[in-house]
Amino acid sequence: MTRTVYLNGDYLPEAEAKVSIFDRGFVMADAVYEVTSVLGRQILEFDGHLARLTRSLEALGMKNPMDRAEWLAIHHKLVELNDIDEGLIYLQVSRGNGGDRDFAYPPEGTPLTVVLFTQAKPGLADNPQAKTGIRVISIPDLRWGRRDIKTVQLLYPSMAKMEAKHQGVDDAWFTEDGFVTEGTSNNTYIVKDGKIVTRQLSNDILHGITRASLLRYAAEAQMQIEERPFTIAEAQAADEAFFTSASAFVMPVVEIDGVKLGSGKPGPVAARLRELYLEESRKAAQ
Amino acid sequence: MTRTVYLNGDYLPEAEAKVSIFDRGFVMADAVYEVTSVLGRQILEFDGHLARLTRSLEALGMKNPMDRAEWLAIHHKLVELNDIDEGLIYLQVSRGNGGDRDFAYPPEGTPLTVVLFTQAKPGLADNPQAKTGIRVISIPDLRWGRRDIKTVQLLYPSMAKMEAKHQGVDDAWFTEDGFVTEGTSNNTYIVKDGKIVTRQLSNDILHGITRASLLRYAAEAQMQIEERPFTIAEAQAADEAFFTSASAFVMPVVEIDGVKLGSGKPGPVAARLRELYLEESRKAAQ
Repeated sequence: MTRTVYLNGDYLPEAEAKVSIFDRGFVMADAVYEVTSVLGRQILEFDGHLARLTRSLEALGMKNPMDRAEWLAIHHKLVELNDIDEGLIYLQVSRGNGGDRDFAYPPEGTPLTVVLFTQAKPGLADNPQAKTGIRVISIPDLRWGRRDIKTVQLLYPSMAKMEAKHQGVDDAWFTEDGFVTEGTSNNTYIVKDGKIVTRQLSNDILHGITRASLLRYAAEAQMQIEERPFTIAEAQAADEAFFTSASAFVMPVVEIDGVKLGSGKPGPVAARLRELYLEESRKAAQ
Repeated sequence: MTRTVYLNGDYLPEAEAKVSIFDRGFVMADAVYEVTSVLGRQILEFDGHLARLTRSLEALGMKNPMDRAEWLAIHHKLVELNDIDEGLIYLQVSRGNGGDRDFAYPPEGTPLTVVLFTQAKPGLADNPQAKTGIRVISIPDLRWGRRDIKTVQLLYPSMAKMEAKHQGVDDAWFTEDGFVTEGTSNNTYIVKDGKIVTRQLSNDILHGITRASLLRYAAEAQMQIEERPFTIAEAQAADEAFFTSASAFVMPVVEIDGVKLGSGKPGPVAARLRELYLEESRKAAQ
């Protein structure tokens, strides 16, 4: 079955979905994106991702081109057309094609480019990696200073991911001024003596939608949370570590820079949080 | 006359030149570029730009997909097809379309996407701004840490350019840790007591092709050059300031953050260097 994607109002076979070489998403990385998970044919965290999309667009002087009902209808139609039971929906909005390349933005009213496509991921909720945990290395965070805006400037995270693979591990955690900022495409946490520690929100990290929900669920479950930066050494000495993202939910990390955490196996807090997150977010899925 | 552009071996009307929505240049900013000037139908600094393209590609683990003769032939054909006497040629190479979005690079052998197009700029060499100079503001440099690789991650320079326009001036100079790094798309210089001061090369700035040639011509003309960082305050107190780029050559800056430099008019050193640069680079044009 060929995948059907959405491009500027049309539903097209993926091979026919093309944008101009003058699109600012292609020549200027002038675009933002969101990724949502689909479980049981329903969209997780739809409103959270839509709110962040609007914030990212506004931070760059763009207006959200569609209302909630229109976005949700496209998501549902793509799920249906591509028969997605478990998977992801990727959404990107660029500043469009101003007719030529220019550092200055094109005139107001230039249509934004809107792209959405699905990725089928059977077994997403029962990812076996959640049972074994993953291994990470630390890499200096060389990304730009507005990581709170979810732009397509993903070259450095992509380079870091490749460096991790090259070193035989799964992913990388970024560090800056001695502290962990976040993972290549996820927020990071450690657990020590039952307390969950994660970096506070700022321009230095993405304001994770999964992060926000998880911290709410954890607080409701009377778990202790501390929002502050932590170091790699502190993470290596922690009882557990994990990350959260829209596509991995809660994922245990069992090794950092070659040092095993605790027993070297996923711990009970991450397991409990993953269960809690999946249960609650399925309930709120649309 | 509709513009003819180059895309992966084909010469196409610009409206037909499209890339997949899965191209890594569109979804990951995983692409590098070069811009060369055309004067008298000939390409300036061709070998310098080609060498930097190869360096940028290699820094990202890509191989230059064509040899010198092939690149030069495309440049000349685009000049001819679009009847460019004075203008620019833009060249972009992305890591191509791996079939789906993934932080990991696509398999080796995935064809790179190669795009070139022209921009006609009649009067490029006699730009009247070179007579009046331009005005800039300073803006904190929030770009990523590998500015020596010429990637399409140009959102922040684009935002800075728009902020400069919003403030009624022409461009912005970036500052980091108290010192000027470079302009939005150019290298920056000041002149004090006859000495030319410009920041030394590092990962913090682009290694300008125009910069390298200009410093060589200036040295050959017995002018004094000092390569070190300078502050905005030092620039405001300088006799002259200017920037260099492949498309603007040598451009005087007469005001920084509202402070006029010297007489508020372009000075003799920038004028002499512009003349010298145009004369020498025309001689070497291909």
